[in-house]
Amino acid sequence: MNYYEQNRQNFLEGLQTFLRIPSISTLTEHKPDIQCAAEFVRNELRAAGLANAELIEGEGNPLVYAEWTGAPGKPTLLLYGHYDVQPPDPLDAWKSPPFEPAIRGDDIFARGSSDDKGQIYILMKAVEGLLKSRGRLPVNVKFLIEGEEETGGEHIEAYVRSKPPRLRADAAVICDTEMFAPDLPTLCVGLRGIVYAELHVEGANHDLHSGVYGGAAPNPIQAIAEILSTLKDRDGHIRIPDFYKRVVQPAAKEREAWARLPFDVAEYTHKEMGSKELVGEPEVELFERLWARPTLEVHGIRGGFTAEGAKTVIPARAVAKISTRLVFDQRPDEAFAQLQKAVKDSCPRGVTAEVKLIHLAAPSLVNPDNPFIRAAADAMKQVFGKETVYIRSGGSIPIVGLFDQYLGIPSVMMGFGLPDDNLHAPNEKFHLPNFFRGIEAVARYLEVLGA
Amino acid sequence: MNYYEQNRQNFLEGLQTFLRIPSISTLTEHKPDIQCAAEFVRNELRAAGLANAELIEGEGNPLVYAEWTGAPGKPTLLLYGHYDVQPPDPLDAWKSPPFEPAIRGDDIFARGSSDDKGQIYILMKAVEGLLKSRGRLPVNVKFLIEGEEETGGEHIEAYVRSKPPRLRADAAVICDTEMFAPDLPTLCVGLRGIVYAELHVEGANHDLHSGVYGGAAPNPIQAIAEILSTLKDRDGHIRIPDFYKRVVQPAAKEREAWARLPFDVAEYTHKEMGSKELVGEPEVELFERLWARPTLEVHGIRGGFTAEGAKTVIPARAVAKISTRLVFDQRPDEAFAQLQKAVKDSCPRGVTAEVKLIHLAAPSLVNPDNPFIRAAADAMKQVFGKETVYIRSGGSIPIVGLFDQYLGIPSVMMGFGLPDDNLHAPNEKFHLPNFFRGIEAVARYLEVLGA
Repeated sequence: MNYYEQNRQNFLEGLQTFLRIPSISTLTEHKPDIQCAAEFVRNELRAAGLANAELIEGEGNPLVYAEWTGAPGKPTLLLYGHYDVQPPDPLDAWKSPPFEPAIRGDDIFARGSSDDKGQIYILMKAVEGLLKSRGRLPVNVKFLIEGEEETGGEHIEAYVRSKPPRLRADAAVICDTEMFAPDLPTLCVGLRGIVYAELHVEGANHDLHSGVYGGAAPNPIQAIAEILSTLKDRDGHIRIPDFYKRVVQPAAKEREAWARLPFDVAEYTHKEMGSKELVGEPEVELFERLWARPTLEVHGIRGGFTAEGAKTVIPARAVAKISTRLVFDQRPDEAFAQLQKAVKDSCPRGVTAEVKLIHLAAPSLVNPDNPFIRAAADAMKQVFGKETVYIRSGGSIPIVGLFDQYLGIPSVMMGFGLPDDNLHAPNEKFHLPNFFRGIEAVARYLEVLGA
Repeated sequence: MNYYEQNRQNFLEGLQTFLRIPSISTLTEHKPDIQCAAEFVRNELRAAGLANAELIEGEGNPLVYAEWTGAPGKPTLLLYGHYDVQPPDPLDAWKSPPFEPAIRGDDIFARGSSDDKGQIYILMKAVEGLLKSRGRLPVNVKFLIEGEEETGGEHIEAYVRSKPPRLRADAAVICDTEMFAPDLPTLCVGLRGIVYAELHVEGANHDLHSGVYGGAAPNPIQAIAEILSTLKDRDGHIRIPDFYKRVVQPAAKEREAWARLPFDVAEYTHKEMGSKELVGEPEVELFERLWARPTLEVHGIRGGFTAEGAKTVIPARAVAKISTRLVFDQRPDEAFAQLQKAVKDSCPRGVTAEVKLIHLAAPSLVNPDNPFIRAAADAMKQVFGKETVYIRSGGSIPIVGLFDQYLGIPSVMMGFGLPDDNLHAPNEKFHLPNFFRGIEAVARYLEVLGA
């Protein structure tokens, strides 16, 4: 029995201790818990045998750093994840309390179990296992674990932008993604970027009576509807000029691999999404729509009178939150400028429209022939006993773009979550077989890479 | 000096007493004030010499009834108004407390001064003056004053629908409208009707992550924008099939009279409306757009995430409050059915849309050649010394349709408010010269009609 088999119970108990810390980064009253979680990670890394384990304090929540650099001439990996978690509300939807980890069947239920404490614990325990059983690692590693991923990650962004020498590495490993299906080893090789903005529309400088002024007064809600329906057509095509200009089509080989993924469209549509049907560009296959096509979505809208009953007001203003997801090789700055121009051009008479940027992130695409990806695919295949599949994600992980831009390194997105893990929702869970196999897969990855 | 000249100070003091009662019908804690205001009206009518002055109690706030029917063979007028008022908020925007009437210059400031206590007090004092100075009236009158005008008027609607014999009359006089300009005697001869509804759009049965599902998930906010922009074009034309079918164009004579109304379009646009420009059907003149064309307006919209910051959610539902103002000879039921069908037909894939009716009212149009209107125009002209103008109102007064439909009588809309009276807003006022001339004009009207 090897170290990993011997220590399963220890790993599980350690994870439970970690999950009991309510390190919710959006709520300031949890500041002490944030500190506690950061120290827990540092102490575990130090106990595992890593050097220079410390908190990097700054304006936001502390970063945790630790390293082992005893393999000169071998590659250096930057291991990333986050110790902060989403708020647990609504609390009454949880079957067991969110910060009292409960094991039911093969799953452990707790806020942060999958996103991302369970996953960074995999990285930590994989490294611990190699160091404890052999006294050394096959490659060099540097841990960088943050505590603001759920609130924007401003601290780590500033830190990475400053290009500190200690972050020099050959590749990053991000353990914050999903496997496509249970038991199916998966690597994520592409992410969409995002431009998130607010659309503010103003008409008259005060609310007006719709009887007295209807027929002469501009209506900002009608105008926002006009603008939104101009930006995207009914089939999901974005109508912003030149918006698709830089979009790189997926290679035929990648498309064919996607078509072979095990997938039940009815289950996905009705059960997972809770929808009557799938929409979006009809001439584009589903995975390409989700992973390789930009989208434009309205996240929220507000204007005028919305309480019970009737009020005949023409409101003075309306606001919508919108974002566009970008794909390789779109540029966030350019996309935002295109969006601004399209809104200006489609703005009806009588109102003014302004687009305010909230945040942006670049899309990323990693070549699967990259040796760091190939080694990860090999390691995953060995541990799970199945061919590793390559997917992309429709979501955005800004750190990947930052690592690329400021550190010049590719990211290996090796994740062990599952699509039904209830991320950001009640009853978040982590699949324990993935937890244990994840630890072994990461250890194997370091071995393959160092061989 | 006649009775009216002698009693100016009494009238003013009586009005102040009336205005001090905070008879806010939307707030249940003001129920005692509602009762107090109803009793004040009844007592004043009784003291003026009217018979059968009483409260008609029912499920809602009491109606006040009183009559004088001592002129057999002469016409009978039903005098309508309301004693309830809007809430005064925001309180800190008032220069003097809303229920402590303050006279500044020629105006009296108080909630309800113009809408509608000042105006019904005109009716009451006109009748009182004739009875006190001559012992009789030239025509028969029946007062019907309600206390739910600001909250839907359900009680009076049920009462009128029951066609009580005591409401038999030849015409109604409604003292709840405006003069087109100061010193310009004005009769309102048309009102728009209304269909007020909620548009509910639902997509998936739960909120979805826009990164994970964007490109496949239906978006109810985008869908509601599509629907709204399909129902009306950018130039303000309603695109609901057959919607304009029954619209009766104003006669050339009426249009010409509107073109002669004293009107400063720049002042109206920038100062009164606070708008950069006027919008609406470009080929239609302004007064026709406001008074003789149907409109479709969104009053409020709500959906998804609207708090500060960014949340990348595709919401499960969105709702908008919409209304269409109807003109003669449109039918509210038919218009609602047309709206429902148009929404159904324009609903994008993947979502369901439902239109729920909140309330409706028929449009009305009175022929100015009607003898009751002609007499009113004569009386107004005599008192104000200027030719009476005929306007319509873009708003809706449901009681006019009810009087027409259930009592079979036309309404004479003889009002003494001004466009800048701040109805439903802070610093509501009533122009005192209009108050005193209004009393004389109503008295003169009864004389002209009884001659």
